[in-house]
Amino acid sequence: MFYLMSSGSIKKIGNNMKEVTIVGAGLVGSLWAVYLSKAGYKVQIFERRTDIRKAEISAGKSINLALSDRGWKALKGAGVDHLIKEIAIPMPGRIMHDMEGNLTYQPYGKEGQAINSVSRGGVNARMMDIAEQVGHAKITYNTKCLEADMKNGICYFENNETHEHFEVKSDLIFACDGAFSAIRYNSMQKLDRFNYSQTYIEDGYREILLPANADCSYKLEKNALHIWPRGRFMMIALPNEDGSFTCTLFMPFEGENSFEKLTSKEAIDNFFKTTFPDFYTMMPNIADAWEDHPLASLAITRCYPWHHGKTALMGDAAHATVPFYGQGMNAGFEDCTVMNDLMLKHNHDWDKIFEEYSRTRKPDGDGLQDLSLHNYHVMRDFVADPKFLLQKKIEARFAAKYPDKWMPLYSMTTFSDIRYSVAWKEGQRQQKIMDEVMAMEGIEAKWDSNDVEEKMNELLGENMV
Amino acid sequence: MFYLMSSGSIKKIGNNMKEVTIVGAGLVGSLWAVYLSKAGYKVQIFERRTDIRKAEISAGKSINLALSDRGWKALKGAGVDHLIKEIAIPMPGRIMHDMEGNLTYQPYGKEGQAINSVSRGGVNARMMDIAEQVGHAKITYNTKCLEADMKNGICYFENNETHEHFEVKSDLIFACDGAFSAIRYNSMQKLDRFNYSQTYIEDGYREILLPANADCSYKLEKNALHIWPRGRFMMIALPNEDGSFTCTLFMPFEGENSFEKLTSKEAIDNFFKTTFPDFYTMMPNIADAWEDHPLASLAITRCYPWHHGKTALMGDAAHATVPFYGQGMNAGFEDCTVMNDLMLKHNHDWDKIFEEYSRTRKPDGDGLQDLSLHNYHVMRDFVADPKFLLQKKIEARFAAKYPDKWMPLYSMTTFSDIRYSVAWKEGQRQQKIMDEVMAMEGIEAKWDSNDVEEKMNELLGENMV
Repeated sequence: MFYLMSSGSIKKIGNNMKEVTIVGAGLVGSLWAVYLSKAGYKVQIFERRTDIRKAEISAGKSINLALSDRGWKALKGAGVDHLIKEIAIPMPGRIMHDMEGNLTYQPYGKEGQAINSVSRGGVNARMMDIAEQVGHAKITYNTKCLEADMKNGICYFENNETHEHFEVKSDLIFACDGAFSAIRYNSMQKLDRFNYSQTYIEDGYREILLPANADCSYKLEKNALHIWPRGRFMMIALPNEDGSFTCTLFMPFEGENSFEKLTSKEAIDNFFKTTFPDFYTMMPNIADAWEDHPLASLAITRCYPWHHGKTALMGDAAHATVPFYGQGMNAGFEDCTVMNDLMLKHNHDWDKIFEEYSRTRKPDGDGLQDLSLHNYHVMRDFVADPKFLLQKKIEARFAAKYPDKWMPLYSMTTFSDIRYSVAWKEGQRQQKIMDEVMAMEGIEAKWDSNDVEEKMNELLGENMV
Repeated sequence: MFYLMSSGSIKKIGNNMKEVTIVGAGLVGSLWAVYLSKAGYKVQIFERRTDIRKAEISAGKSINLALSDRGWKALKGAGVDHLIKEIAIPMPGRIMHDMEGNLTYQPYGKEGQAINSVSRGGVNARMMDIAEQVGHAKITYNTKCLEADMKNGICYFENNETHEHFEVKSDLIFACDGAFSAIRYNSMQKLDRFNYSQTYIEDGYREILLPANADCSYKLEKNALHIWPRGRFMMIALPNEDGSFTCTLFMPFEGENSFEKLTSKEAIDNFFKTTFPDFYTMMPNIADAWEDHPLASLAITRCYPWHHGKTALMGDAAHATVPFYGQGMNAGFEDCTVMNDLMLKHNHDWDKIFEEYSRTRKPDGDGLQDLSLHNYHVMRDFVADPKFLLQKKIEARFAAKYPDKWMPLYSMTTFSDIRYSVAWKEGQRQQKIMDEVMAMEGIEAKWDSNDVEEKMNELLGENMV
């Protein structure tokens, strides 16, 4: 039942259908509403911000996300994947830009596999449409969640405009309210024996919009993720539907090459001219555009348990991560797949569902964090390293020949639904093997020889899991 | 300057002396008030609880703390050590109680070295007297800190009785408000790039008061810390001034031997009868006393930075720890020594003081946590292990002969002011050496031979720091 309570009075609304409160109309909250609705629940979503569909933000002008297999599987499970496919741009590989402007292409997976660029604003607006139209959810905007009585299913809200406080009591609460989740901060963190950590990495990021050509064509190859790896820092670019690219510069806040050094137009101009020359020729006004987007920080959140009483955390609220594996949205969507499977398994017995969700999904949240931090280092330090590129070539060759024996870590993470925790463990086993392979004498010359293949088969035998 | 602000009006009080707000009249806040006062600051302390000196808690009936060298040094620096010495009971060693009631004595350090049992209530009441009488601090009770404007030195309070809200603006704020610090939770944790973690261990604890004999004499040897190590769980007992002992049972919340199994009087009675038989004979009514104290949890807190603007965290607010090395209070007191040294070094330039305090004291906060977790495992798993006891004997013998070459880890932590971070690193180096020594053939027979001594000297040469 929903109860709307204000000034001490309790108003009962709705019928006998089980009623659910979702906090946050972001990607995960919107998708989960569809699953719940299809399972027979009545869903109400409360969102802190205004309706982005009515706000003056043109889609494709904000941070971009990379949708991949786990995300598609969850969208498909709710029957809404086709609605997102319309706004997604496939990127089958990455294109590396070196200091001289030379390009190197590296496919992400096998023929036909790709990750997909979607703008956060665009996909969120579409997901809200889906929540309302497919999920029959009522979304209430401008409503800030203050805290929750998690045992009794009561959420406390404040209307941002009137500052009126009100309470909503329902059968279940799902906190899909993101990295700075109010329910996690204000209610869960104060529980006895709740483990929690927030860890910022040394790097920040700043977005830059690379506009389309005058004829709306793309200034760079559309169907690729572009990357300018520069050792301790890097820039990436993902395509938007309108011909522009959303570029993101990741670098340390302090130190030799850092954001603290880029405070004058002259310094910014000079930095791009010398460090990203091919980009600079496309966008010589970079110094003027520098302040269009703020400098932002990046953090990893871990916590446990992910539920209490009638309340569960999903998505970033449970496992906000850094964007370097492109798995944040995919992991959040996968939470919906996992929760839905448990809902069916335990026939809507939510004590059992939440207990198993916390216990079994948490290791995958940790796996996600381990993978994302790992790829932060890979992208930052290794992606331009000839040894690293050779290793990936050897792995790809072996995987093509022995697909049952070897799936590269990137593919396990991106093009499969192997549990994150299992992928991470398997990836560490593979790295141990590849360390030995890369130490073989003359590996550069004989990388595609039978010798190397035999060695890998032998090492795989020794390193059985 | 202090400004008391209420209903929008600002009232200026005090003179031109720099004025300081301390949040929390616990051990660290009270001691730090003395240092500040001696340095010429005017100090005001706000405390959430009622004045424990007026409350009906007889001293010696709550959890006990072990005061050691770092604590004494800080008390001495403020010239108040003699006032605490009066209420401290020296414990030069630990007495282990086995299942048959056999006792083994193990000195903590050299002749003349001891840790000291003080009751938390007793020492806190005395520290409040000291803050008022020596530190000329005004303590305001029943005043809950809500949050702080850390840049501008404004603390927001609520009076627990009238529920009136008021603000205090001062030149500096010291958050000495403990493990659940309101300033850290509600203000610092929301800062961008503030790292934070709270991690609960699997064990909880419950206190038991072992009363004095009818003639007020002690039921156990007074000048010792008693310990009943039982592998995965343990009980300890520390003496009180009135002849009683404060005993604490540490064990897992769940599992085979755990608190969840001790829910009936019969189970409790049976557990003590079979597991702590010598204790049971002294306290056959244990089952009736079981509920006198609640079951409580234990957590480690880490965060960074420890300051922002005009505000710094000290003591448990910065580095709450588990009690297994008896260093929580000592570390908090040592924060006062460190902060005072920096105050003199930087001649009251608080930007510089706080910056260096955060940067240089944080590694010692981490060292404290590493040491405390390490001793949790030592006390739980090894303290009754003959091999461990032999290792400690070998170390003690070598340290006595070569005091310049070897100080046991326990002594570095407890009987020195070597930085925690250095002690922890040195302890790991020593353990590496002792692993090799303990692996020597026939070590049990030749532990005090020249052979072993030579081996240690040799290994020390190879493992130079």
